[in-house]
Amino acid sequence: MHLLITAGGTSEKIDRVRSITNHSTGKLGKKIAEQFLENGHRVTYVTTPYALRPLASTNLAVLEIETTRELEAVLLELFEETQFDSVIHSMAVSDFTTETSLTEDSFIEKLANQLMKEADVSDVTKLIETLYQTIDRIGQNKQPEKKISSDTDRLLLFLKKNPKIIAMIRKKQPKTVLIGFKLLVGVSKEELLRVGLNTLHKNDCDFVLANDLEDISDNQHLGYLINQDGQTQVAKTKAEIATTIVETVESKWRLKNT
Amino acid sequence: MHLLITAGGTSEKIDRVRSITNHSTGKLGKKIAEQFLENGHRVTYVTTPYALRPLASTNLAVLEIETTRELEAVLLELFEETQFDSVIHSMAVSDFTTETSLTEDSFIEKLANQLMKEADVSDVTKLIETLYQTIDRIGQNKQPEKKISSDTDRLLLFLKKNPKIIAMIRKKQPKTVLIGFKLLVGVSKEELLRVGLNTLHKNDCDFVLANDLEDISDNQHLGYLINQDGQTQVAKTKAEIATTIVETVESKWRLKNT
Repeated sequence: MHLLITAGGTSEKIDRVRSITNHSTGKLGKKIAEQFLENGHRVTYVTTPYALRPLASTNLAVLEIETTRELEAVLLELFEETQFDSVIHSMAVSDFTTETSLTEDSFIEKLANQLMKEADVSDVTKLIETLYQTIDRIGQNKQPEKKISSDTDRLLLFLKKNPKIIAMIRKKQPKTVLIGFKLLVGVSKEELLRVGLNTLHKNDCDFVLANDLEDISDNQHLGYLINQDGQTQVAKTKAEIATTIVETVESKWRLKNT
Repeated sequence: MHLLITAGGTSEKIDRVRSITNHSTGKLGKKIAEQFLENGHRVTYVTTPYALRPLASTNLAVLEIETTRELEAVLLELFEETQFDSVIHSMAVSDFTTETSLTEDSFIEKLANQLMKEADVSDVTKLIETLYQTIDRIGQNKQPEKKISSDTDRLLLFLKKNPKIIAMIRKKQPKTVLIGFKLLVGVSKEELLRVGLNTLHKNDCDFVLANDLEDISDNQHLGYLINQDGQTQVAKTKAEIATTIVETVESKWRLKNT
């Protein structure tokens, strides 16, 4: 098989010296890649600067990206040339990117100006409409900041949604065995499985690995691999998760190709 | 001499899986520390997880922090026990920390509610007062988010000012030779020196190293070491900056101690 594995966490620039980063050590992605390589498969591995990498192998190609936009561009290029047998999308991708930032003073000045001009505070519908339009205008007003001044007590950062990478993966690789990942924090097992299955269906994945940050530590990593019928396989360490994913993808791929 | 050197860049958590990071490789701090160690001095080195470290030495102690609050706590503890002969504060410290985050919808709902209750849009002074109070109330309303939901098109992040570490250093170490750092992006030399000297006086530093991100690359690093009279020494590489700082601190310290 030729697999694409994404791992690590993307960063989004706020200005030239700051960025918002999604934490991910890349340990799980590394383990998954190494097990596939051991089984003789070929792996294209897309990761981020500070994440751990799989041990070198002639069957391994590593590509590095930082932002979600860069990830999108690299994947689109790969998908032009290659139909991957499976895509394992374990990278923690920033849901949001910086739209604009401004000081509290500047924000309030803009808001007050607009309200004085347009607002009718006795009509809630019109007021809310004005507020949405004003926020929209402020958000889209990109004077690129080279370095945000520290000369204000409060700063407002506007973030806007990034493109959904996993939806693009399925669109461009309709036949691949697609594994998505869902990380939540401090929810019940029922909630985790519900949200995981929802992610699976929304993005047309074959499987989703659902996990909770509070069940992850150095020696344990509780993960549920959910299939399209909502059935789950449990794994209790990163090594077990890797084995479960490798075996599941291999058997799914054999089924598809016989 | 016993020196304290800070290097690297702090991070501020947004939620359990994301943070805002100030980029800094730590290369310059490493070079400065190594030159002081070569000259037989003792170095306490405070740095961040992804920054480079000085080569090991029996005269070197390394401490690691992530956030500005952690930096403050570690420094206060060190200052309880030790009067440092010099403090070289090259760490890129986050000016802001996350106060709260909310979706555009939730922000507009809160704002509209408050405006319907209180606002008089014909009176600009009262309107602005209401807006400040509302933003304040929203900012301070900390329902801690474990992981921000991605289910919104726009997210607003409220950041509030961090304590100024360098001011605290001078307060706690009145006699130390204090070197501050000022990084700007894309300004003229005049502006850089003006802002650098301003930083020096505002924080009662002995020297400030002023530099511009656009004059920093792999092989060059243009830096101006400014003294209290506004006189400058120029250095063109990290090694030259390190040498300039080491020589300047050593001679200042000799002057103070003879």
